[in-house]
Amino acid sequence: MIVPRLIERKRDGDTLAPDEWRELVHAYAAGHVPDYQIAALLMAVFFRGMQRSETEALTDAMLSSGARLDLSALGAPRVDKHSTGGVGDKTSLILAPLVASLGVAVPMMSGRGLGHTGGTLDKLESIPGFRTDLSLARARTQLERIGCALIGQTGEIAPADKKMYALRDATGTVEAIPLISASIMSKKLAEGLSALVLDIKRGSGAFLPELDRELELARTMIALGEDRGCPVVALVTAMDRPLGDACGNALEVRESIDFLNGSPPNDLAEVTYALGAEMLLLAGIAHDRDGAHSMMREAIQSGRAADKFREIIDAQGGDAAVVDDPSRLPIAPVIREYRAARDGIVQEIRPRRIGHGIVELGGGRRAMDDVVDPAVGFVITVRPGDTVRAGDVMATVHARDDAGAATGHHILDEAVTIGDAIVTPLPLVSHRVTAHGTETLA
Amino acid sequence: MIVPRLIERKRDGDTLAPDEWRELVHAYAAGHVPDYQIAALLMAVFFRGMQRSETEALTDAMLSSGARLDLSALGAPRVDKHSTGGVGDKTSLILAPLVASLGVAVPMMSGRGLGHTGGTLDKLESIPGFRTDLSLARARTQLERIGCALIGQTGEIAPADKKMYALRDATGTVEAIPLISASIMSKKLAEGLSALVLDIKRGSGAFLPELDRELELARTMIALGEDRGCPVVALVTAMDRPLGDACGNALEVRESIDFLNGSPPNDLAEVTYALGAEMLLLAGIAHDRDGAHSMMREAIQSGRAADKFREIIDAQGGDAAVVDDPSRLPIAPVIREYRAARDGIVQEIRPRRIGHGIVELGGGRRAMDDVVDPAVGFVITVRPGDTVRAGDVMATVHARDDAGAATGHHILDEAVTIGDAIVTPLPLVSHRVTAHGTETLA
Repeated sequence: MIVPRLIERKRDGDTLAPDEWRELVHAYAAGHVPDYQIAALLMAVFFRGMQRSETEALTDAMLSSGARLDLSALGAPRVDKHSTGGVGDKTSLILAPLVASLGVAVPMMSGRGLGHTGGTLDKLESIPGFRTDLSLARARTQLERIGCALIGQTGEIAPADKKMYALRDATGTVEAIPLISASIMSKKLAEGLSALVLDIKRGSGAFLPELDRELELARTMIALGEDRGCPVVALVTAMDRPLGDACGNALEVRESIDFLNGSPPNDLAEVTYALGAEMLLLAGIAHDRDGAHSMMREAIQSGRAADKFREIIDAQGGDAAVVDDPSRLPIAPVIREYRAARDGIVQEIRPRRIGHGIVELGGGRRAMDDVVDPAVGFVITVRPGDTVRAGDVMATVHARDDAGAATGHHILDEAVTIGDAIVTPLPLVSHRVTAHGTETLA
Repeated sequence: MIVPRLIERKRDGDTLAPDEWRELVHAYAAGHVPDYQIAALLMAVFFRGMQRSETEALTDAMLSSGARLDLSALGAPRVDKHSTGGVGDKTSLILAPLVASLGVAVPMMSGRGLGHTGGTLDKLESIPGFRTDLSLARARTQLERIGCALIGQTGEIAPADKKMYALRDATGTVEAIPLISASIMSKKLAEGLSALVLDIKRGSGAFLPELDRELELARTMIALGEDRGCPVVALVTAMDRPLGDACGNALEVRESIDFLNGSPPNDLAEVTYALGAEMLLLAGIAHDRDGAHSMMREAIQSGRAADKFREIIDAQGGDAAVVDDPSRLPIAPVIREYRAARDGIVQEIRPRRIGHGIVELGGGRRAMDDVVDPAVGFVITVRPGDTVRAGDVMATVHARDDAGAATGHHILDEAVTIGDAIVTPLPLVSHRVTAHGTETLA
């Protein structure tokens, strides 16, 4: 294997053989191929794309570079949900306990916030004491005992992907559909799932804002999963505005707890229930959508979903009392109201500006080793299309100090626009993609 | 400067500002930007190209990363010739002493063989004792004394280019016109030239085989030179077959000595004199092409050109007696004739196959630290279009041992084809490109 020749072939539009990908990925993970050669190859992939056989070989090579959770002894179906990332997207925090409380095992491996998108691990760690760095062995024991484990990508899972993802982040090679697909699916397939639900975000706050590229991403991941015995269903959901009210780590945990205690904002409920229904259907626990919705509502009304969240928090070292008393979560020292400057219609709530704004307030990372302030963020109670009057409270800024509050105010000035035009936001759940095709829902 | 953002902008077709290129190149040369980020950026440049302002900024940044030869105190005009690389191309070995003997200072900085193309430094070092690793100070002293110095790229000259070229070679990012142009011109402009002649090779053995890309390369380098006060003329010459008979380090030195002693093969003479005439015209030593040719023939007939070669060899520690007795050069232990297998017309003598073949015989490098066997190679006395009869000697193989001779025979079987079709090789000198336009010569 002469790596510069492989790079040149990919650069010139040739297809590399599965064996070549396998050898390359394993040699890279073992430190025998330098970062700079892989960086050049990944940029060539960005421009040339990958044939399906190549994406499959890359996925398999990254998967086989590490360990897999063997959950075959578990009686229950194993279903995870993965989102391509957004702002205010706390559906994982809600769905893990909710669906687990209905008898589905949820081995959920999540990431940290990077760029403008939040990360489930950062959110969970705002719960005092909560640990996400479980070994695979401990995650398996916990799954057997309580049916859910919320963990990060350990060094055991797909180490080649972990190394390559860090390189992509540093070299402008993140936004390539085959690379995104192989990265996500190599990790998800290591979870030993019986099925997977994907939440593909769409709109200005999404990773890939164009719908056709989102659909291509969904189809690529579905094919990778299905060919490896893991049925996959994807929903395309709106990320032209934040999801729900809360944006920021502890604020989103609090909103998730409120949800499990029975009081969700409508948009968050719609997306969460839609994804949850797909999980229950794939698990074979529900038999139709209406049944799935009833089961989820019952799990919340009966308190079973909240109980399950307490169990998970307790199992992972956290303060389970937050579920009954969210004031035990970190609270920002300075909380300021943000009011409408004029009468009109909310035109836009730009999710990228809000997401980057959380980072500016200290609630996200500029570099992987930054410390996150869990308390800061925004709670935005209006939606695009809402009519407001000058002086109406539209949001609150949660900041570390007065300077942060002023920054937060300025960020909202940029993110939230009021005008006179009638606004039609994207439908919350617009497409359902399966191995059989794409259904337009709204 | 956030490097991943610069990479993404280039990747997405944006133009980086001159200041951004300058800062990036200097930070890279200083070790503050890792190889993997530059590798990704260079691959993005391969696909997106560079605006003229970017190529200029890159050239200037690489030039200013090191020292320059200050030859302004030299009375004589300073002219160099640079070739894009070929097989059997020993014109530098001939032109340096020939043109220097006519009063032009020739500060010639050359490279080593890599890939299928030979390198002037490797050829020179086949002369026993010859040193090419002169410091700039010593090169200047030698130029003042005898009007010529034949050196390699020292650590003093354009160190950023040296580092970036090694990276490009390892990452499949060599064949990009702006990168080639900036790399060559940053080194040539450091030589303190008053003018430069470019030999742009064309045909299957050339670095960039397509004529339109060769012409683009010529025009890019001409613009870079002219804008920096260095007039540049480029000739496009044939590399669809090797140039001259000899291919291999010591063999090419011997053919160059034969040339300086008055007996060159016709094709080598035509290309060498054409390039030499451009050098003499740019230097203002000759006033028209006919005059230039007469001067060169006179320098050879009178022995002045051979004398100059002796002086150069002597000044650089080599055995100058090789000019009178080429048998003092390394000679291969095994020399075998290669004969035509059938009657017919020589269809092709594939230069890439010959060039790679020299490497297989040990006469070139697979990696930068390989040791080169100076004696091995091929002497091919036929040309495409020649009529041959079965049994005619077409070439000799010069090898280290019997196994090498067998390999060499096999290489010639692949490189030299005999058929019945009338063959029209490319014209030896087909285009002349200057800042004013492109002239088609044949």
